[in-house]
Amino acid sequence: MSEPLEAALLNGQAVDPAASGLSVLDRGLHFGDGLFETLACRGGRVRFLQLHLERLAHGCERLRILAPDAGLLRAECEQLARACDQALLKILVTRGPATARGYAPQGNERPTRIVLRYGWPALDPRHAVEGIAVRLANVQLGENPLLAGVKHLNRLELVMARAELADPAVFELLLFSSSGQLVSGSMSNVFIVQDGRLRTPRLDRCGVAGIMRRVVLRAARAAGREPEEAALTRTDLESAQEVFLTNARIGILPVRHLESRQLAPGPITRELQALIAPSLEEAADA
Amino acid sequence: MSEPLEAALLNGQAVDPAASGLSVLDRGLHFGDGLFETLACRGGRVRFLQLHLERLAHGCERLRILAPDAGLLRAECEQLARACDQALLKILVTRGPATARGYAPQGNERPTRIVLRYGWPALDPRHAVEGIAVRLANVQLGENPLLAGVKHLNRLELVMARAELADPAVFELLLFSSSGQLVSGSMSNVFIVQDGRLRTPRLDRCGVAGIMRRVVLRAARAAGREPEEAALTRTDLESAQEVFLTNARIGILPVRHLESRQLAPGPITRELQALIAPSLEEAADA
Repeated sequence: MSEPLEAALLNGQAVDPAASGLSVLDRGLHFGDGLFETLACRGGRVRFLQLHLERLAHGCERLRILAPDAGLLRAECEQLARACDQALLKILVTRGPATARGYAPQGNERPTRIVLRYGWPALDPRHAVEGIAVRLANVQLGENPLLAGVKHLNRLELVMARAELADPAVFELLLFSSSGQLVSGSMSNVFIVQDGRLRTPRLDRCGVAGIMRRVVLRAARAAGREPEEAALTRTDLESAQEVFLTNARIGILPVRHLESRQLAPGPITRELQALIAPSLEEAADA
Repeated sequence: MSEPLEAALLNGQAVDPAASGLSVLDRGLHFGDGLFETLACRGGRVRFLQLHLERLAHGCERLRILAPDAGLLRAECEQLARACDQALLKILVTRGPATARGYAPQGNERPTRIVLRYGWPALDPRHAVEGIAVRLANVQLGENPLLAGVKHLNRLELVMARAELADPAVFELLLFSSSGQLVSGSMSNVFIVQDGRLRTPRLDRCGVAGIMRRVVLRAARAAGREPEEAALTRTDLESAQEVFLTNARIGILPVRHLESRQLAPGPITRELQALIAPSLEEAADA
């Protein structure tokens, strides 16, 4: 069993998640017409809250959803984070209940915002040290520049990808796009190191531009590296000396097993793990 | 303003759609992890109900969602249709409230079923006779064979496409896939006639396999035509002598204006309109 849901706010009101009052007309349900964020809380604080709120606002702009007041969302996140030493928050923002039938937004929708707090998922501490096992997904990601990078609610491809993953020893799946480009993990971004160069897939045709990806790119630049966002292929992945995954929950996890290939967590992975360690992260967010 | 919502059932219980009790954990909301159907009612009966229920069951199988009892869904649809001369029903089935955090289905989810009745949307009767105006969308559809043909809840691409359509004189947008294949309208399937041959896009990489599309293919076959499901390009569309659109609500509508090109509703379109007229449809469904 996974981490339990501990609290839920629907438009700011605490709701019983089992019998909560979401409208059956919500466009988030009907079309996946909305966005989400997953945030890590530690010591009663939300990490990188400002970056998450910025991405959410940017996503609203991309989908032309009226962004909820950032101060309100910030307050709701802080309210749910306050009581916990470690927890995960999930924010969902949708265009709101439909004001007319059909796909077309009418412009008069009032967005729905939901903030959920989950218990902190146990993460084997050896993963960050020794590395994880990763497989290549059979599911490929459809390409759409209009939605690329946005953390929207159309996630059925990832549901199908995760349904593939039966082996509990495999931590994550790496996905390619329908045109064969490396994109990301199912719940993480991916970086590779080739001959000392740090590279990550450019997310202009699909994928989600993760906050930890952004933090890592920023930390690498500040350290004098020149990380590259590029179109990467399977060959690039196979020729990499280091591969690591990032997200808000896992931070940076080195890949040790990539299908049948063995890798060792390398020096650049270690350097970046140290650079994004919690104390520095907090400073970076301030 | 569009057709009003008249009634809503959530797991069989009538709910106030403005304050209805959908769980904020529903995977339909979080991931678009579910399916829908749009059905036409006339004279208190649901047209092609059996075909819709079959497609829904097939979609559940594709997504590995436990299909709701078909008898129950049938009864709920009939209950909502009984009182109305003309109406639209929408069925939504999701994998249900999440039983764990994250994308992976756990296998113990209990599906959510929602049946909504909307007023019948006014349709200009001249559309079926004189034809409609259609534009080509800028939005392209991502390709994913795993989801192709399925009427799932990941519909953000179509939301974005419809948001493009500002001109009320344009009835529909035609969409191409990211690899340049003709796929469908934003809410309809498309057929073309080239040198007497009836053709419609093969839906093996994206698009929704519509019930009216299936009815038209069946009627054409029964009439001795050999309709072809094929990979069609923009050139095919541009060289077609007849183009028409189909869905449960509109039946068959000929295209008169395709961007700047003028077309006339042709003999094969007329023949098929006659073949799928209500009385025969009812017989076909029996």
